[in-house]
Amino acid sequence: MKPARLTSLVFAAAAAALLQAGAAQAAMKTQWIDYKHGNTTLSGYLVYDDAVSGKQPGVLMAHDRSGFSEGTIADAEMIAKLGYVVFAADMFGKGVVPKTVPEMTDLITIYNNDRPLMRARILAGLDVLKSQPNVDTARMASVGYCFGGTVGIELIETGAPLVGFASVHGSFRNFSPEAAKNIKGRVLILHGAEDPVAPMEELNAVIKQFRDAKVNFDVNLYSGATHGFTHPSNPSEVRADAEYKVAMARFLKEVLH
Amino acid sequence: MKPARLTSLVFAAAAAALLQAGAAQAAMKTQWIDYKHGNTTLSGYLVYDDAVSGKQPGVLMAHDRSGFSEGTIADAEMIAKLGYVVFAADMFGKGVVPKTVPEMTDLITIYNNDRPLMRARILAGLDVLKSQPNVDTARMASVGYCFGGTVGIELIETGAPLVGFASVHGSFRNFSPEAAKNIKGRVLILHGAEDPVAPMEELNAVIKQFRDAKVNFDVNLYSGATHGFTHPSNPSEVRADAEYKVAMARFLKEVLH
Repeated sequence: MKPARLTSLVFAAAAAALLQAGAAQAAMKTQWIDYKHGNTTLSGYLVYDDAVSGKQPGVLMAHDRSGFSEGTIADAEMIAKLGYVVFAADMFGKGVVPKTVPEMTDLITIYNNDRPLMRARILAGLDVLKSQPNVDTARMASVGYCFGGTVGIELIETGAPLVGFASVHGSFRNFSPEAAKNIKGRVLILHGAEDPVAPMEELNAVIKQFRDAKVNFDVNLYSGATHGFTHPSNPSEVRADAEYKVAMARFLKEVLH
Repeated sequence: MKPARLTSLVFAAAAAALLQAGAAQAAMKTQWIDYKHGNTTLSGYLVYDDAVSGKQPGVLMAHDRSGFSEGTIADAEMIAKLGYVVFAADMFGKGVVPKTVPEMTDLITIYNNDRPLMRARILAGLDVLKSQPNVDTARMASVGYCFGGTVGIELIETGAPLVGFASVHGSFRNFSPEAAKNIKGRVLILHGAEDPVAPMEELNAVIKQFRDAKVNFDVNLYSGATHGFTHPSNPSEVRADAEYKVAMARFLKEVLH
């Protein structure tokens, strides 16, 4: 082999390494999208890897009680980096970002007490995800945090065409007992055993509904983790936060690929 | 660069590739080890990768009600291939391999009804694992299947120096309610939601004991899976069988490395 040929091989290897590094650190494209549900203007957050060509699987994210807080934005971007077009739907209305826990509670109570409204509101978000030209509508899943756990289960219980839903420290009250039979995809529940907002009794009630309806589900239960373990406040929650990220990534890969 | 130098580089690369292939397909060393518990002669199964030098983490396996069936041997070898010295302890006695379910039930009933005997019997197995020259005794865990789930929990509730225990479709009856506080390592429970041998009520009872004792535990619950999902008889069990292998491997890596 001539030196020139060897040099070109070395350059090719270096170029391949650079390309790989580029793929791993791709700049994410982010965009706020305004849309309507009835007379209410909503504004959701779209995030995806602009460097990927062709259609990608889509993930509809249902935010927690804090709405579009920094945590919600960060979680949407984390999921997008797994290789998905993520649309974080807006449940509260454009510009409505509660600052205090009482404000958060007041807001989620509106939707928790009006399930048809909750369903219609999240379905409006699903329509936005579906309409993205880079989303493969045959491969859509959902992820919901906290209040978004309730929203996500209401969503899949409409029979929406989702291949999976992952609940992260979700709340599980007041579902229609018969509605679980409408679920088409798989469900993954990632939950803290010391969650005072959705305690074991509530988790067991939803497990029973899912078993009765023969839903395809998994539950991962983390000891010592309370509600909101994704913002860890003790070593058990640090572990739960790490575990859930692995489990969610694996679940999305299984259902979306 | 001279052709001779380039050739030697190519040979070095080829040799490295061959070595890597060799490591991935290492021949496992297997050995039956006779040992005593009181006047009872036991015979357990040791399996490890002979090509690894130095001390390795150790895994004590507690067999299911079938004793040293083909399934038990296969599971021990599967765990050893993850990079551990595995000793499958003998609970029943050398040469005692039940052939029918009534024989199995008779055998496990002896130990289920005599927990001090169960504990002493499995501790004798732990001593064998500890005494292996290639086992790092600071990094030992246990895995138990079915009846071995009961055995493994009794074992860690003695305060045995294990960094982790994984129960695979284990049974969870009749533990001393206070004993969970003796557990030193982490516990992973891999369980079918439709297990008729250890139904949800039994699982929830052990979860309560673990929560009360602040044990560091995870539960992975698989819908549609009955007892013995590691010998799958429906699509849900095929999924559970695949999921548990990933979860167990990840758990062992976390606690043993």
